[in-house]
Amino acid sequence: MARFVCSDPLPLESGRSIPSFEIEYEVYGEFHPERTVLLCHALSGSSHAAGEGGWWDGMIGPGKALDTDELCVICSNTLGGCSGSTGPSSPHPDDGKPWALRFPVITVGDMVNAQRRLADHLGVDRWKAVVGGCLGGAQALTWLQRYPERCERVAAVGITGATSPHSLAFYEVLRQSLRLDPAYGDGDYYSEGIPTAGMGLNARIGMLFWMTPEVMVARYGRELLGDDYAYTLDPEFGIHQGMAALGAGAGAKFDPNTMIYLSRAMDYYDLARGYPDIQSAMAKSLRPVHLVSYKSDWRYPPERVEKLSEALPGARHSVLDSAFGHGAWLFDTATLATTLAPFFRS
Amino acid sequence: MARFVCSDPLPLESGRSIPSFEIEYEVYGEFHPERTVLLCHALSGSSHAAGEGGWWDGMIGPGKALDTDELCVICSNTLGGCSGSTGPSSPHPDDGKPWALRFPVITVGDMVNAQRRLADHLGVDRWKAVVGGCLGGAQALTWLQRYPERCERVAAVGITGATSPHSLAFYEVLRQSLRLDPAYGDGDYYSEGIPTAGMGLNARIGMLFWMTPEVMVARYGRELLGDDYAYTLDPEFGIHQGMAALGAGAGAKFDPNTMIYLSRAMDYYDLARGYPDIQSAMAKSLRPVHLVSYKSDWRYPPERVEKLSEALPGARHSVLDSAFGHGAWLFDTATLATTLAPFFRS
Repeated sequence: MARFVCSDPLPLESGRSIPSFEIEYEVYGEFHPERTVLLCHALSGSSHAAGEGGWWDGMIGPGKALDTDELCVICSNTLGGCSGSTGPSSPHPDDGKPWALRFPVITVGDMVNAQRRLADHLGVDRWKAVVGGCLGGAQALTWLQRYPERCERVAAVGITGATSPHSLAFYEVLRQSLRLDPAYGDGDYYSEGIPTAGMGLNARIGMLFWMTPEVMVARYGRELLGDDYAYTLDPEFGIHQGMAALGAGAGAKFDPNTMIYLSRAMDYYDLARGYPDIQSAMAKSLRPVHLVSYKSDWRYPPERVEKLSEALPGARHSVLDSAFGHGAWLFDTATLATTLAPFFRS
Repeated sequence: MARFVCSDPLPLESGRSIPSFEIEYEVYGEFHPERTVLLCHALSGSSHAAGEGGWWDGMIGPGKALDTDELCVICSNTLGGCSGSTGPSSPHPDDGKPWALRFPVITVGDMVNAQRRLADHLGVDRWKAVVGGCLGGAQALTWLQRYPERCERVAAVGITGATSPHSLAFYEVLRQSLRLDPAYGDGDYYSEGIPTAGMGLNARIGMLFWMTPEVMVARYGRELLGDDYAYTLDPEFGIHQGMAALGAGAGAKFDPNTMIYLSRAMDYYDLARGYPDIQSAMAKSLRPVHLVSYKSDWRYPPERVEKLSEALPGARHSVLDSAFGHGAWLFDTATLATTLAPFFRS
């Protein structure tokens, strides 16, 4: 675990700026400025990508797809995050109290600009690769669009060229469920403790999307907690208990304000914005790109990823099978590792 | 609008009973005991099925699929409902105060038994047809299973033989979001007014499932409310405004406790329960049945409806196209009307 402290103000796309910021990151493999990969996490991720509890441990390590015998992998907690980097839970420079909703609205481009400062600080002129899924993939593709000279290649999984209307609606549901939590209040809850019920509901809603009906049948079926129907309003089915466990886990460790800010950044994500079309937006991004989508991921479906692929001069697109839909790149990494390993080795 | 008051206790599957109950119903077409169709509504429905604001107006009326020149259609608000029939918002016979969570847990079978009392009261020995979608379809199929001699034919749309694990999870999310609403409290909120925020969130969550990504693209796209990104945490996209309108509409008119009780009834719905398999459960149900599913309805997919169809001796199964997924039978009735009309005419 390491931390980069940047005392220079970071101008934001909104026109506002952050007077100073910190980025927490983890380093896997021996650092070398010419063979370092930047790994970007998704909405509820952190810089802890590899090792015990790491969100992409199946992908990172000696001999794995991101082979730390050959490469150094740096995963940074995004700007706006709640796992060490500056975000709504961090102290405001004026009064030392948490920013809460005083934190400025940020975009994926702002996250990338903060990472660029980290690259400068580390002396990395060009990442060996920039890699990520979902929001992390949006960051990787934004690097590709804005700073192609600073990334040798890009791999993006489960992401399209813009946030779809369905995902706009999905993120709005996540935010509304956080705000409904009585403990959320006006968002400045830090002295009382982080609210957990809204994040618990978020996790349950998320499960409806990443865990496909087939996986739920295999894992839970209609199994009861007791011997028979109890005719109560309490959880009576195994899947209810599974959801409660998932909700408790998610609620215990994540700041709702970070979810609100990061999901809003995803709302704005649209590579073609300011360009006539996606082709012209990506015309200068002449780098090898490997896109991966999943047949069961109807939130980021292969057809829409293929449209992005067609707009990228150097892109290859792999469509994989998995029962885990949009969660496949996190929960079902074996095929993904086989698919991406040659790309990182080349 | 009519109301049936039943002063005889209704024994419930839980072993409890309701001392007396009322069922509100609407009648479309001239009543005749030998040509009356029972129409069953879904989770958020009411007895108001036809005419202005009716939830199945495209299907019911002179010359329509349920042709009121030939048939009489009776739609009853389900037991547990909040639109006139006895449910959690009704006065408890002991103290005249709302039942709230004192209301007993009910099943789809209990709803059908209450409807059977209505049939007895009306002098209908055999419904010309029993019809419904989703929860309404579950009621129709429960009629078919338990009282085949009392229904001449059955049409069920967007429903399978049992609630899937994914739907168990979905209903749990709906209940959790209602309970998260600070105004929900202990569920006995009637003197303060019906809580609206949780139902508003319910409606937004529901939209993620019935409005397919394609419809959202066509209807809203990434259209902004203002001229440009405003970089706020407020709604900035057209779809956010659409969701807010939907949420306000839903929150204004529906009792959260009814949603909790009816969704729990759906949890228990499993035609094969108590039988070795679905075939033996339906072996005596020798009636014409028309099942309809939609290719885009992944919550109640054609493959699973086909499995039910195979277990029904007299079943026919139509798989339709629609962009509206599980909402198709409510929001896209033209093809459904053409498909079902001959079945009701025969």
